[in-house]
Amino acid sequence: MTSTPRPIILTGDRTTGPLHLGHYAGSLRARVALQHEARQFLLLADTQAMTDNVGRHQKVTGNVLEVALDYLAVGIDPALSTIVVQSQVPELAELFQYLLNLVTVARLERNPTIKEEMRLRGFERDIPAGFLTYPVSQAADITAFKATHVPVGDDQLPMIEQTNELVRRFNHTVGQPVLVECEAVLSQVARLPGVDGRAKMSKSLGNAITLGATPDEITRAVNAMYTDPNHLRVNDPGQVEGNVVFAFLDAFEPDTAKVAELKAHYRRGGLGDTALKRMLDERLQALIAPIRERRAEFARDRAEVLGILRRGTMRAREAAAQTLSEVKGALGLRYFEG
Amino acid sequence: MTSTPRPIILTGDRTTGPLHLGHYAGSLRARVALQHEARQFLLLADTQAMTDNVGRHQKVTGNVLEVALDYLAVGIDPALSTIVVQSQVPELAELFQYLLNLVTVARLERNPTIKEEMRLRGFERDIPAGFLTYPVSQAADITAFKATHVPVGDDQLPMIEQTNELVRRFNHTVGQPVLVECEAVLSQVARLPGVDGRAKMSKSLGNAITLGATPDEITRAVNAMYTDPNHLRVNDPGQVEGNVVFAFLDAFEPDTAKVAELKAHYRRGGLGDTALKRMLDERLQALIAPIRERRAEFARDRAEVLGILRRGTMRAREAAAQTLSEVKGALGLRYFEG
Repeated sequence: MTSTPRPIILTGDRTTGPLHLGHYAGSLRARVALQHEARQFLLLADTQAMTDNVGRHQKVTGNVLEVALDYLAVGIDPALSTIVVQSQVPELAELFQYLLNLVTVARLERNPTIKEEMRLRGFERDIPAGFLTYPVSQAADITAFKATHVPVGDDQLPMIEQTNELVRRFNHTVGQPVLVECEAVLSQVARLPGVDGRAKMSKSLGNAITLGATPDEITRAVNAMYTDPNHLRVNDPGQVEGNVVFAFLDAFEPDTAKVAELKAHYRRGGLGDTALKRMLDERLQALIAPIRERRAEFARDRAEVLGILRRGTMRAREAAAQTLSEVKGALGLRYFEG
Repeated sequence: MTSTPRPIILTGDRTTGPLHLGHYAGSLRARVALQHEARQFLLLADTQAMTDNVGRHQKVTGNVLEVALDYLAVGIDPALSTIVVQSQVPELAELFQYLLNLVTVARLERNPTIKEEMRLRGFERDIPAGFLTYPVSQAADITAFKATHVPVGDDQLPMIEQTNELVRRFNHTVGQPVLVECEAVLSQVARLPGVDGRAKMSKSLGNAITLGATPDEITRAVNAMYTDPNHLRVNDPGQVEGNVVFAFLDAFEPDTAKVAELKAHYRRGGLGDTALKRMLDERLQALIAPIRERRAEFARDRAEVLGILRRGTMRAREAAAQTLSEVKGALGLRYFEG
């Protein structure tokens, strides 16, 4: 027992595809470290993924196991972290429904993340109700586990704000501090670009390196990486900014002095793309090989992985049921007890 | 076993106050008759009542038992009908969340019932998300029990339309006929006016006669009833239309020939309001006395009533869980089975 309570982290992923190096750099790596310091819930957010994948539910459900494999492959330890399948925790749906009364439609539409997603998807007024309200569903996930810390990108800050608004509104309504406000934990790591130089690595854009990538796939991806289009001859000075190879070295080469040296060399000329890419290739092969192997190992024992998910989900249900019981108690909804 | 399947009825009430003669004439009486012919689920809709009673949750939860007492007092037989407390059926919240993905915000806002309620409550864009989406919650209630028939007033027809749209959309999405369309059953009975002549009897308007009304309360209400303001002397011709006493006689006097005679007499003059009201008073005293007594009897045994609700809710959960299991199966969400 320590004097300060152990932080509770809620994080997770929509299950729409296997994870890639962008996830590894941006979140997975940190989760592996954090599982020793905090109580960590990792949500396989299939219900949330359904909100904008109507008619593509097989994609969502078929990737639950894939993402779980990615978690286990990178070193998430089910004895330390709780891996939860969202759809299998009915308490989250109940809490969602109660929170839904505490926010107006206008407020949801002002959420910048939703506004941006509406724009990107061309939804306008045809936005599905489940999609408009998914920040409330997220708030239910966060508060059900009484999470104190939620790792997010800065585009997700409005979600945390909305969650804390709901927490305050609920506690004020029932006159008791039942739910707990959370703190956003901003990633310290720059977002990993796609292989093609686009700002975001994404499987659907075809510019990703997945965590199960074969040696060949890695080499091909590295060779295809966008560098400096004006760096035509080895001896020309090259540009480091916007150069995908350096973005990857920044993310995955622990020897920062070496990376600084390489950047200086590249800038002044004399370091060719081929040599540079060979170095990155070696680094990525070394990084991914054990992940790929562990992933394949777990993939061979599907029943064992399902068992891990079942046990994690049961543990999560206990925590969520406790919160829901407090919520329903505060609202006077526990007719059949006492 | 009959060749045509037994109809399944879903109906119920928001638990915002004890029921009154308007409910009795409009729905309760029919439910008592129907429980012999159909499988009937009566929903104590506390979750739905919460959607526009934030901060007044005690009013909602405190009336669950009151409405249950009203049901039992009028002759709902828990061996024939299933009385269900909505908030205690988590399956409804889960189904609600899946259906929410199948309807757009624009479609919900076009729902005439919602539009009218938004106008009445002055909600505009400040409508709570839970309120905008409550027709989806109703659709979840209806479809969870695979109700084939839903008794409604004509102002509720858009709700049934919306439910059936969701049913078709869901079945189309999963490519299987999982959910069942329902049929609206329109009440044959004219809506009972308030004692004061206003179109709607309502406890909050103070123009209602509750099912537990004392003899004195009944007499006072009848004496206060709005009749024909131009019918000043007994011998004057009187007007039957808009005359609350006749509306009540139409609703509660089984001897229709007698009512027709009274109307003719009143119209040609010679039948005074006092005599007429005395007849109605007698009729209502005879109607309410046994209801009031049964109500008081059940009210003395709160534990027994809670037991009835618990057992009904358990039975309802079994039915809803079966449907939810089919829904989740069709979406591929039953990872931990088979």
